[in-house]
Amino acid sequence: MAEEGVPVIRYEELPEGPAVVLLDQRRLPGEETEVVCTDVPALVDAIQSLAVRGAPVLGITGGYGVALAAALRVDVADAAEQLANARPTAVNLAYGARRVEAAYREAERAGEGAEAAAVRALAQARALHREDAEGSARLAEYGSALLEELVPGGGLRILTHCNTGRLVSGGEGTALAVVKAVHRAGALRRLWVGETRPLLQGARLTAYEAAKAGMAYSVLTDGAAGSLFASGEVDAVLVGADRIAADGSVANKVGTYPLAVLARHHRVPFVAVAPVTTIDPATASGCDIEVEQRAAHEVTVGPWGGSGLSGAEGKEGRALVPVGAQAYNPAFDVTPSELVTAVVTDEGVASPVTAERLTELCSASRRQASRSADGMMRS
Amino acid sequence: MAEEGVPVIRYEELPEGPAVVLLDQRRLPGEETEVVCTDVPALVDAIQSLAVRGAPVLGITGGYGVALAAALRVDVADAAEQLANARPTAVNLAYGARRVEAAYREAERAGEGAEAAAVRALAQARALHREDAEGSARLAEYGSALLEELVPGGGLRILTHCNTGRLVSGGEGTALAVVKAVHRAGALRRLWVGETRPLLQGARLTAYEAAKAGMAYSVLTDGAAGSLFASGEVDAVLVGADRIAADGSVANKVGTYPLAVLARHHRVPFVAVAPVTTIDPATASGCDIEVEQRAAHEVTVGPWGGSGLSGAEGKEGRALVPVGAQAYNPAFDVTPSELVTAVVTDEGVASPVTAERLTELCSASRRQASRSADGMMRS
Repeated sequence: MAEEGVPVIRYEELPEGPAVVLLDQRRLPGEETEVVCTDVPALVDAIQSLAVRGAPVLGITGGYGVALAAALRVDVADAAEQLANARPTAVNLAYGARRVEAAYREAERAGEGAEAAAVRALAQARALHREDAEGSARLAEYGSALLEELVPGGGLRILTHCNTGRLVSGGEGTALAVVKAVHRAGALRRLWVGETRPLLQGARLTAYEAAKAGMAYSVLTDGAAGSLFASGEVDAVLVGADRIAADGSVANKVGTYPLAVLARHHRVPFVAVAPVTTIDPATASGCDIEVEQRAAHEVTVGPWGGSGLSGAEGKEGRALVPVGAQAYNPAFDVTPSELVTAVVTDEGVASPVTAERLTELCSASRRQASRSADGMMRS
Repeated sequence: MAEEGVPVIRYEELPEGPAVVLLDQRRLPGEETEVVCTDVPALVDAIQSLAVRGAPVLGITGGYGVALAAALRVDVADAAEQLANARPTAVNLAYGARRVEAAYREAERAGEGAEAAAVRALAQARALHREDAEGSARLAEYGSALLEELVPGGGLRILTHCNTGRLVSGGEGTALAVVKAVHRAGALRRLWVGETRPLLQGARLTAYEAAKAGMAYSVLTDGAAGSLFASGEVDAVLVGADRIAADGSVANKVGTYPLAVLARHHRVPFVAVAPVTTIDPATASGCDIEVEQRAAHEVTVGPWGGSGLSGAEGKEGRALVPVGAQAYNPAFDVTPSELVTAVVTDEGVASPVTAERLTELCSASRRQASRSADGMMRS
C-alpha cells in the first residue's frame, strides 16, 4: 500500500455499492484527486486514459476489476476479457484479470454460489495486491545489492525514465523502489529524472515521488540524457519493464531504448527492474512484442492544455503543430537483451540476461508456478 | 529572403526611425506576428528570448543590430559587444556583429562621417544577408548530391532535429534546405521531425516549414527516435550546427548527440549541414565548446501555458513538476567527429570529418578569408 498520501488503488464497499477507487495520476502533481469506478467499463476507461498506469498496478487493477464484476453479478468472463485487452502491451493486466477470474471459476466449480465466489475473487485480488507490495520490497533488496556490486562506493547518480514507483505498484514500485532503497542507505547522490514525453510521467510522477521521499533530483528533457552521459554524470540507468520476452528483450516506455544505446556507448550499467510476472515465456523475442501505437494528439496537442491534462484525456489544449500534421507515437520501445546489463526480479537477478536464467527465475516463483498450472497465460 | 509568408528578418526605415523587424518565432505556427526592435537592448532581448534563433540568422541579426546602432549614433563598439555576447554558444552572432562593426570602423578610419559609416555598416549587413541566402543554395546543392551518393535510389526517409530552415537563415536554411532540395527532386519519402524539447522548435517550426513546402512528414517525441531506427525507418539523419570545433566536433541543439549515437549503432549516415562560418578554428575541440545552460522553467513549466508560449517567454504557464524541482537544461550538446559521417558546408563536403579537411574548406571561403584578415574572430 502507499506509504505517503492518497492510496494509489483501493477496493471499497461504498454505500452505493462496490467500487475500485484510483488516485487520478493524470492530475498529479498539482492535484491529488480520485476516480471512483463503479463498473467495469468505467475501469477500462480509466486504464485506457492513463488515470492508472504502470505494469504492476495494472495487474492489481485487472484483479480488482474482475472482483468488481463478480460483486456486481455481471459476466465475469466478459469482464476479464475486456480488462485483459484494455491495453495490448501490458501483460500484467491480463495476468491479474485471469488470475482472479480463475479463483472465481474454481469457487463456482466447487459448487459455491455467486456470492461466495465473489468473495473468493476479491480475496484473490487482495492477495495479488499484497504479494506485489512484498515483491517491491524484494526488488529493492536485490536491486540495491546489485548496484553495490556494479558501482561500489556509494554517491550514485542514477538516471531513470518514466514512473516506476509507488504509483505503479502495490508497494514502492520497481526501479524507483530500488532508488528509494539506495537513498535510504545514504548512497544516492542524485536522481536524474527523464521527463518522458509525451505524457511526462517522469516530470510529473517520478519527480512527485522523489520530492516526497526527500531525494536530490533534477528533471531533464529526454534528449538531454546524451549530455549527461557524455559528461560522465550517470553511474547507472534504472528502468522498469512492461513486458520482458523469453529472450530477455525489454519492452518499456518509449525513450528507454535510446538510453540503453547511450549507456552501452558510455559503458554505464543499464538495469531493468520488474517482477517475474513481467516475463512472458509465450513471447519468444523482442520482435514478437506488439507495441501499442497511441493517438497523435498526445504529441501534437501536448500533455496539458488550458485546464488540466486535457491532452492526455482528450483533444483539447493548444495545438503545437500545423493543422493536419501526422505523428509517430509508439507507447513503448524494445531494448534487446545484449544492451541490458541485468534484469532484477523479485526472485533474483539475471546478469547476464539469458533465456536460461529468466526461465530459472520464472520457475523459482510460486506465483509463476500457479499461473502456469492454471493455464492462464495470454499469448 | 523568405520565399513564403512573412520575412524572417528585415531592416526597415520606419517613420519613427530605423528598426530591425523579426518574425516572432515564439508564436509560430499559430500566429505570424512581428517584433519591431528600435534599439539594441530590444534586439538583445529578442535574441535571448528566442524570438529569433538559429545560427545563420543570428549572424544576420548581429549584423543588422550593429547597423542599427550606427544609424542611431549609439556606441557601435558597445553594441557589437552586447550583441556578440547575447548568447554564448552561437559563434555566428559574434561573427555578424564583428563584421559589420569592422566595416563601420574602416569607414571611420577612412575619414568618413558617422552618417556615411552607418550607410557602410548597413550595406555590409545586407551583404551578409544576401551571402547567407546564396550559401543556403550551395548547402542544398552539396547536401543533396552527398545524399544521392550515401543513400542512392531516392525514397529517402530523413530524420531531423530542431529547426534549420528558412526561419534560421537568410535563405532556405541549412539541413532543411537540403531536405527541401531532396523533396523538390521527388526523392523524399518522409521527413521525420523530432519535436525538440524543451522549446519544441521541431514540432512548431520545422513542421510549419514542412507543411508549407508540401512534404510528407511526421512529428515524434525525441525519445521515439530509437524505435524509428530499430524498425529501419531512417535512411539518414540531417542536422544543423551552432558551432563546429576545429576537430570537427559539432555543437547543436540538445538531443542531437543521442541521434548520432543511435545512427552509429544502426549504421545510418549522420550529416551536419552548416556554413563554413560555423567552423571555429579558435575552438580546438569539443571540450572547449562552452555550452549554454538555460533556465529551469523551460523544462519545468513547459513550453506554453494558458496563453501563448509563456514558458519560452517567462515563468507563466502551468508547472509540471513539484514546487522547488531542479532541472538540467543545457541548450546544446556536442557530437564528436567520429560519429559524424559528413559535414556539408557552403564550400563543399568534409567526409570523413577531419581537421585538415575543415581547414581546407575554411580557406576556400572568401568570406572566411576576409574574416581572418580582419582579425575579427572571437575566441
